[in-house]
Amino acid sequence: MESSVFRVESMAVPGGTEAIVRGGRDLFPLLPDALHGVERIGVLGWGPQGRAQALNLRDSLAGTGVGVAVGLRPGSRSAEDARQHGFAEDDGTLGDWLEVAAGADLVILLIADAALAAHHEEIFAVLKPGATIGLSHGFLLGHLRERGSAFPAGHPVIAVCPKGMGDSVRRLYQQGATVNGAGINASIAVHADPDGHGWDRALAWSVALGSPYTFATTLSAEYHSDIVGERAILLGAVHGLVEALYRYFRIDGADPVTAYQRSTEAITGPIARTISNEGIPAVRAASGDEDLFDRAYSAAYGPARDLVAEIYDEVADGTELRSVILAEQRLEDRPMTEIGGSPMWSHSAEVHALRGTPRATVGYADGRAAGVDPVTAGLFVATMMAQVDEFAARGHAWSEIVNESVIEAVDSLLPYMHARDVAYMVDNCSRTARLGTRRWGPRFQAAYEQIALPHLDQAADPAKIKGFLDNPAHEALAAAAKLRPSVDISV
Amino acid sequence: MESSVFRVESMAVPGGTEAIVRGGRDLFPLLPDALHGVERIGVLGWGPQGRAQALNLRDSLAGTGVGVAVGLRPGSRSAEDARQHGFAEDDGTLGDWLEVAAGADLVILLIADAALAAHHEEIFAVLKPGATIGLSHGFLLGHLRERGSAFPAGHPVIAVCPKGMGDSVRRLYQQGATVNGAGINASIAVHADPDGHGWDRALAWSVALGSPYTFATTLSAEYHSDIVGERAILLGAVHGLVEALYRYFRIDGADPVTAYQRSTEAITGPIARTISNEGIPAVRAASGDEDLFDRAYSAAYGPARDLVAEIYDEVADGTELRSVILAEQRLEDRPMTEIGGSPMWSHSAEVHALRGTPRATVGYADGRAAGVDPVTAGLFVATMMAQVDEFAARGHAWSEIVNESVIEAVDSLLPYMHARDVAYMVDNCSRTARLGTRRWGPRFQAAYEQIALPHLDQAADPAKIKGFLDNPAHEALAAAAKLRPSVDISV
Repeated sequence: MESSVFRVESMAVPGGTEAIVRGGRDLFPLLPDALHGVERIGVLGWGPQGRAQALNLRDSLAGTGVGVAVGLRPGSRSAEDARQHGFAEDDGTLGDWLEVAAGADLVILLIADAALAAHHEEIFAVLKPGATIGLSHGFLLGHLRERGSAFPAGHPVIAVCPKGMGDSVRRLYQQGATVNGAGINASIAVHADPDGHGWDRALAWSVALGSPYTFATTLSAEYHSDIVGERAILLGAVHGLVEALYRYFRIDGADPVTAYQRSTEAITGPIARTISNEGIPAVRAASGDEDLFDRAYSAAYGPARDLVAEIYDEVADGTELRSVILAEQRLEDRPMTEIGGSPMWSHSAEVHALRGTPRATVGYADGRAAGVDPVTAGLFVATMMAQVDEFAARGHAWSEIVNESVIEAVDSLLPYMHARDVAYMVDNCSRTARLGTRRWGPRFQAAYEQIALPHLDQAADPAKIKGFLDNPAHEALAAAAKLRPSVDISV
Repeated sequence: MESSVFRVESMAVPGGTEAIVRGGRDLFPLLPDALHGVERIGVLGWGPQGRAQALNLRDSLAGTGVGVAVGLRPGSRSAEDARQHGFAEDDGTLGDWLEVAAGADLVILLIADAALAAHHEEIFAVLKPGATIGLSHGFLLGHLRERGSAFPAGHPVIAVCPKGMGDSVRRLYQQGATVNGAGINASIAVHADPDGHGWDRALAWSVALGSPYTFATTLSAEYHSDIVGERAILLGAVHGLVEALYRYFRIDGADPVTAYQRSTEAITGPIARTISNEGIPAVRAASGDEDLFDRAYSAAYGPARDLVAEIYDEVADGTELRSVILAEQRLEDRPMTEIGGSPMWSHSAEVHALRGTPRATVGYADGRAAGVDPVTAGLFVATMMAQVDEFAARGHAWSEIVNESVIEAVDSLLPYMHARDVAYMVDNCSRTARLGTRRWGPRFQAAYEQIALPHLDQAADPAKIKGFLDNPAHEALAAAAKLRPSVDISV
C-alpha cells in the first residue's frame, strides 16, 4: 500500500509491522486529489452497504465537485427510499443502474451477490474506458474464477471493505461527526492497477466512508476472511452457540428468561463490551470462575477450530459459493424461511426490559451475579480464538485477522444483536450471509451440543489455555485499539 | 432391463409398471449362465459391503466353478478378518487388490469412496481386456464427471446397489437360508454394455447377493437417490430429529428416559415396525392423536422438503461430493470427532433394558400408553414423505423411491439403530455417509427446532394431510411389500 496523498504509517503487529492509513474528517479536502480524475462516483445498489456508502461518500465529498449518483435496477423498490435520502432523477443523482454505470468514473458495485453474478457482464459492457471498478467484498472475484472468467482488461479494479454492517458504517460516521470522525475500519485491495492510482483511489474511498484506519489486503484474502468470518464468529457460530446454550440452560433447570440472559444476553452485552474495552483475556476474569471458563474453552476450541477449517476449505474451494448460487436459484420457488421462530426469541422483549434493573445480571441459583456466564464465555471465546488461529495459519495479515474475528464482532454486529436480537439480525443481513448462517450455524450448534458441552466436566487443557493467554492476537488487537475511535456505537 | 436367463416381471406402480426380477435360492443354478463367461469375481475392499458381498457371492456360487477372491490394499488391517472368513492367500482367494483386479473377469469396487477417488486409475490400468467393472453405488461416476473423466472404453460397467447396509445384506441372506432366501432389495444399472450381457451379469450378481427383488435404475439416478437418502431420512434427518425431539421433550419436563423413549425409541421401534408391517398411514392411527399428528406433519413437511431439495441440488451439482473430498483431505490432520457424546446416548442402555417391561411404552403424565408419540410420528413421517415427494418430482422410478425412502429405513437401518443407537450407527457407517450425516443432520435439527416445533399449535394443513393420505407412494410400497421376504431381520 502506497500513497502520494495520505500518510502511510507502520502499525506494530506480532512479527513485524503492517502499513495502515488513519482516517479523519481533516483529510476530506485531500479526497479529490487522491481520486485522481474521478469526478463522478456511481454507487449501484441500495442495500444497507449501498445506502451507507452513498450517503457517506456524498457527505464527505460535498463541495469538492465530485458527484455521487445511485443506480438502481428498473423497478427497484428502493428508489423511494433513495429519493427520501436526497438522491433524485432530476439532478442526475438517481437513475437506472446501467446509465449510472455508464456515466461514472468509479463504479461501486453494491448490488446483491446473486444480481452481481447474473448481471456483471452487462455492467462491464457499458463502462467508460478506464473507469474504475469498485467492490466491497471479494464475492465477484470468486464467481469469476469459478466460471473461468476475469475482470475486463484496462479497468482499475479496487476494493474497499468496511469491517462492519452497512448500518453501522453510516451510524458511526454520523455519531462521530463532531470528533473528527468515527466509523468502521476497512481493508482495501488493488486487484488491477493499469494507471497506477489504485491505492490512492481506494484510500480516498475508505477515508470518505469514515474508516478510522485502513489496512491492505488482497481481494482473494478479503473474500476468504469475509465469507468465512460471517459463517463463523460474526454470525453463524453466534447463532448456533446461543441456540445450544439456551436449551442447555433450560434443561439444566433455568427458566426461559434466565437461560436467555446466561446465553444471548451475556454474549451480546457484557462479553462484547468487555472484549471491546479490555481485550479478550479480560472475559476470563469477568466470568468469575476461571476454572469453569478454562474447561469450557478447552472443550470447545477443538470442534470450533475443526468447523472454521471446514468452512475455510469450502470457501477457498468455491464449494460454498456454488451452494449460494444453487440456493439463490431455489429461492425463486421456495422463499427462505426465517429462523426467528425458535422459542428463545419470544422472550427477547422481556429480557430487554430487564436491562438496568437488578434482574438484568442475576441468573444463578446461588445468587451470584452473572453478567458473564463462564460456560457461555468459554465457548464464545474459544470459537473466536479458533477463527483467529485458523486465519493466522492460513496466512492472513493481523489487521485482517483481528478486524474480521474480533473488532467487527464486538463493535458492529454484537451491539446490533443486543439492540434487536440474534435471530432478527440473521434474518435481516445480506442473502449470502443469511444463507451461510443457516448452513453453518446448526453445525456449530451440534458441535457445542454433541462435543463441547458434554465434556465440561473434564479438566482444562493447559496447552490450549496457554495458547489463548499468550496468543499474539492480543497484541495485534491492542495495536488496533489505539486507532479505535472515541465513539461507542449507539444502536 | 432384459434377461435371457431370468424371468423379468412387471410390477404395478402408480402410473404404470416397472420391470423387476424376483430373487430366490432356486435361481442359483442359473448364475453361471447369466454371468456370461465370468469365471472369477474379484471383490476389492473388506468394509461392511465388501465382506457381505464377498461372502454371499462365494456361498451362492459354491460348486458352480465361479470363484470369488478378495483384494486388499497392501498392509490392510482387514486381511486377518478376511482370513478368518475363509479367504486365503494360499488358494488365491485373498491377495493384493491390483493382482486380484488383474485376475478377475468381474471386478467389484467396494473400497472406500476416498480410496476409489485416489486409486481408480491404477485399478483400471490392470484390468483384463473386456473385464466387467462392478460398482455398488454411483460415487465413482460422480467423481469422474467432476474431473471431466470417464470409465475406460471397452469394459462393461454395471452396478448392483443393495438398498441396505452391508451387515444386513449378509445377515438376512443367512437368516433366510431355509426359506429360499431373504435379503435386501437391490437396484441395478448398466452404464456401459459393449458385449450386450450387462443386464444378465448384474442380475446374476444381485440374485447371488440374495436380493428379494431387483429393479432397474441408472448409475446417475442411483447416485442421486443414494447420497441424498442417507443424508435425509435414512440417517441425517433421523439424527437431527431425535436430537431436536429429545431436548424438546426434556425442556417440556420429561425425564431423560421418557424423552428418549418419546423420541428415539418411538422411531426406531414402533414407528419403523408399523411402517414395515402396515404402511405409512398406519402410523397416524397408531399415534393415538391424529389431530396432533396432523399438526406436527403440517409444521414439518415444508422445512423438511426444502432441505431435501437443497441436498438434492448439491448432490446433483457435485457440490456435496467436493465437500466430501475436502473433508477426506482434512481428516489426515484432523480425525473425525464422534457424535455419540450427546447427553441422550448415555441413557441408551437404561432405555433398552426397559424393553419388554411396562415402562417400555409409558411416557405421558396422563398415563396414556405412548408407543408412538404423535409429535415424533408427525415429524418423522413428514420428513419421509418430503423425501418421497422430492424424489418423485425429480423423476425417480417408484421402486427406487420407496426402497430408498422407506424400505431401507424401516427394514435395514432403523432396526440397527434400535439394536445399538442412532449415534452409534452414524459413527459406524461409511465415511461418505458419516460426513453427510454430520453435514445435514444439524440442518434438520435446526429446521425442526426453529420452524416445525414452534408451530405445533397451528391448525393442520388439510392439503398437506390429503397429499400424505392419497400419496401414490403407498400403492408403490404395497406392491413392493408383496415381494418382501417372510423373514424379519434379527439384529
